[in-house]
Amino acid sequence: MSWVIASEKAKAILQHSVPKQWLLPPDKLPPASQKNVIDIPKRSGLLTDRELDITEMSASALVAGMGAGQLSAEEVVVAFLKRAVIGHQLLNFATEFIADDAISKAKELDAYFKKTGKLIGPLHGVPISIKEHIGVKGHTLNAGYTTWVDHIASEDALILQILSKAGAVFHVRTNQPQSLMHLCCTNNLTGTTVNPHNRTLSPGGSSGGEGASMGFKCAPLGIGTDIGGSIRAPAAFCGAYGFRPTAKRNPTTGLKSPAPGQEAILGVVGPLAANSLSDLELFQRTLLAAEPWEIETSLVPVPWKKVDIGRKFTVGILWEDGIVRPHPPITRALKHAKTQLQKAGIKVVDWEPYKHSHGWDIISKLYFPDAAQSQKALLSQTTEPTHPLTTWAFTRGSPSPLSIHETWALNTVRDIYRDEHAALMKQRGVDFILCPSYPGVAPGIGEAQYWLYTAIWNILDLPAVIFPSGMVVEERDLEEKMGESRGDVDDREWRKWEGDPRRYLGAPVGLQVVGGHFRDEEVIAAAGVIEVVCGENSRRAVL
Amino acid sequence: MSWVIASEKAKAILQHSVPKQWLLPPDKLPPASQKNVIDIPKRSGLLTDRELDITEMSASALVAGMGAGQLSAEEVVVAFLKRAVIGHQLLNFATEFIADDAISKAKELDAYFKKTGKLIGPLHGVPISIKEHIGVKGHTLNAGYTTWVDHIASEDALILQILSKAGAVFHVRTNQPQSLMHLCCTNNLTGTTVNPHNRTLSPGGSSGGEGASMGFKCAPLGIGTDIGGSIRAPAAFCGAYGFRPTAKRNPTTGLKSPAPGQEAILGVVGPLAANSLSDLELFQRTLLAAEPWEIETSLVPVPWKKVDIGRKFTVGILWEDGIVRPHPPITRALKHAKTQLQKAGIKVVDWEPYKHSHGWDIISKLYFPDAAQSQKALLSQTTEPTHPLTTWAFTRGSPSPLSIHETWALNTVRDIYRDEHAALMKQRGVDFILCPSYPGVAPGIGEAQYWLYTAIWNILDLPAVIFPSGMVVEERDLEEKMGESRGDVDDREWRKWEGDPRRYLGAPVGLQVVGGHFRDEEVIAAAGVIEVVCGENSRRAVL
Repeated sequence: MSWVIASEKAKAILQHSVPKQWLLPPDKLPPASQKNVIDIPKRSGLLTDRELDITEMSASALVAGMGAGQLSAEEVVVAFLKRAVIGHQLLNFATEFIADDAISKAKELDAYFKKTGKLIGPLHGVPISIKEHIGVKGHTLNAGYTTWVDHIASEDALILQILSKAGAVFHVRTNQPQSLMHLCCTNNLTGTTVNPHNRTLSPGGSSGGEGASMGFKCAPLGIGTDIGGSIRAPAAFCGAYGFRPTAKRNPTTGLKSPAPGQEAILGVVGPLAANSLSDLELFQRTLLAAEPWEIETSLVPVPWKKVDIGRKFTVGILWEDGIVRPHPPITRALKHAKTQLQKAGIKVVDWEPYKHSHGWDIISKLYFPDAAQSQKALLSQTTEPTHPLTTWAFTRGSPSPLSIHETWALNTVRDIYRDEHAALMKQRGVDFILCPSYPGVAPGIGEAQYWLYTAIWNILDLPAVIFPSGMVVEERDLEEKMGESRGDVDDREWRKWEGDPRRYLGAPVGLQVVGGHFRDEEVIAAAGVIEVVCGENSRRAVL
Repeated sequence: MSWVIASEKAKAILQHSVPKQWLLPPDKLPPASQKNVIDIPKRSGLLTDRELDITEMSASALVAGMGAGQLSAEEVVVAFLKRAVIGHQLLNFATEFIADDAISKAKELDAYFKKTGKLIGPLHGVPISIKEHIGVKGHTLNAGYTTWVDHIASEDALILQILSKAGAVFHVRTNQPQSLMHLCCTNNLTGTTVNPHNRTLSPGGSSGGEGASMGFKCAPLGIGTDIGGSIRAPAAFCGAYGFRPTAKRNPTTGLKSPAPGQEAILGVVGPLAANSLSDLELFQRTLLAAEPWEIETSLVPVPWKKVDIGRKFTVGILWEDGIVRPHPPITRALKHAKTQLQKAGIKVVDWEPYKHSHGWDIISKLYFPDAAQSQKALLSQTTEPTHPLTTWAFTRGSPSPLSIHETWALNTVRDIYRDEHAALMKQRGVDFILCPSYPGVAPGIGEAQYWLYTAIWNILDLPAVIFPSGMVVEERDLEEKMGESRGDVDDREWRKWEGDPRRYLGAPVGLQVVGGHFRDEEVIAAAGVIEVVCGENSRRAVL
């Protein structure tokens, strides 16, 4: 198959799926030059005030509203669909709408509630957007490869089956980059997704469609995947929340991957949230209550537990990783956090990073132990053009396939590194690490090259939460100058700031909180405390 | 280094370590032609009646006795050391005694108890024998390879550190076969270990020294490892108890392996017990109470839990695997178990095996994805002779190294197989599977070729317990004739029976109970019920 035909097919699937009745007419669309489109739903007049309110609510608040009979599942999904259609016009974040199924599911939920007076489950009527490579029965499942455009999922992914039983409504599938290995979002199927806060900037990746969906509030919750930052970069870049769980907690059966069976470094599936950190917890709690390990036996049978974290924990602040210094707005947000945490009586120490270069050396080889032959073979099937960021990713690791013995040696080194890092956290008495999500805020389209502020937690397999600091890039950040270089990579990333810092003005700053291995519950809880303490007192924090 | 010199060195280490004061003089040794040596401790006169009693006690009973001030740790370890020295003379099961350290640790424990009136931990004063490739600080750590005879462990293995803190006393290290991949026990270092019930038969392997140690009661508990049956075959062949936990529960840091970093099929470390199934539970409970996952982070943080299993469970009996039919005494023991379980009101159904050939196809390739190059390289370093069972093991899998893509494909097939088997157990409503441990009882030395009655649970990663059925091979078994052959492998294994069935007379029949993934606690509890129900009312069951 020609990649051009595959691409046309993917676009046709997408266009056919868009609920046309909710499209903004061309004359109501902002000019292409308008960067920030966050307020278009309000200004468009397409959504009623009630619908606008609905789409600003957290999943928990929506469920509560439906449980109280104040909201119907149908009006909720319609409100989010309307917002998602506008969002798609502005951001190109969807790969496929599944509006009819979503509305008919919502109607069933309403009928159930009317009949029984009860909610069907903890996600009753909650619209959730889903990254494309999470299989939906009967729909294309291409994982961003043109050659797979005709692959049709035979089943819903296990995670969708579980969430659906809990009442979730899936209304839109979202975009991802070619190869799934960019912190950006461009492929040869449906093109490039952009950032709702600034359409010249990247929404992040690989769950870039999810980033845009959350940033534009096309759903209160979304599902992404993460092997190097692919949930967290989009959440951070789009001013949303995201969670990378410890590996082997959330089920991945039914996800499409170019290298199934590769298990030296595991991708995870996890939630993003538009409005509320506690929605991440709701998602995880609901998912694990179904005991997915009884079906997908490679998961570990560790139930989700309720934690009461209090404020008696110690936060280590990782100011920089020794390879790339964060850009001024990131450091400003960390400094602010430190001050606020100390004011709140939470113990804060500096966290000296532990061998991040070593961590990168391991993970970059483990991403493509076959020198990306699996991925290249897929690309060559349609001779689709290889995106520069795909080439960038493929050339990070070993130029030739590793031998089995080399992969075994890396596994051993990886485990030692993990054990050493865990011992160090204990020795230093640090419960959580607060750190950048990326060297800067959302980069320009195609410019995301430095993964290690997120990928380091993948190689260490530590759970990590992104939350919006509440800060954005401001004029005062522009005055900050580069200090002592940490080397070539640092120089490269600083050029992206110093070349034209104004282009980032207004972009949100997301911070990352990292916890111990399998301390998933604790890290979400701690991030909740840190968010509140940092003065994020807007509606989103209290809903 | 020449393998001959390495071998002499290993023998010298061993001989030097034997506490000479407890050696039986040559004239008191039974003739080499005497097969069964189980009663030699009693007949030798070397052990006092009190010492004989001590060595017949379970670990729990010993701890209780020490807690009540009726036993001292020193007299306990001395009693077991005396028995172990005789055992070694008769069975060649030890690689090294660590008597002085053991006695001095016991004295410390006694002093602690005298001073505080308290036990130091749940294994206070319990002598435990340990398979050689579990590292002991400052001692050789050769894993059965002559080339490693000069390797000295820099630390105690994590499992030993934990058990030692709980009061365990390690008094003897035990033998293993070349390559660790025989269900038998011969190497070029310290030679061949034999079975205490019949010295012409194998003690099993690869934890064969542990099998002999348990069968002869040289310790109430032992530590073995298992990747295809290496804890369970020795336990079954020697009339003892053994437990293969689910992978990633027990810590393996500090164990020596010829292929570290190979993780597609994981070896596990676990307990054997001489006298009591509940000692397996004591071992596991104590080990996991230390939360080893806080140190060895690749372990899963699943605490050991107390279970009350009752009798409301369903047992599926796997009569044969469709490839090799068990020999007559095994089937007789299973039939007896069925009758007894039914009498006791426990639900019993037939368990139709699920694709065992497929399971073997996967695991045999995953054992040696590099076509055993790692192992062969080690052997070639000293040009030590390759034992026929080593060659047998190495030639089970792929004749040439697998590509990375082939290993990934096998991982995927493995996970699907595991998920299917788990779904089948649920669908059939079977909680536990009762099955053979091996086609027959202990085979002749060097004859163990068929691993699949144990290895199937390794590929499925299910916890499995061995318990002695209380039955032994009897005259009436000899009359049973071969029925319809299942094929060449079946013929081969039946020839081992029909060629000369009398040679197995008196050999114990061990049965295997298997539970669901991570149902480790439940499977030990269920085996306890099954053992009692099967009429195993001897002292060993009630201690």
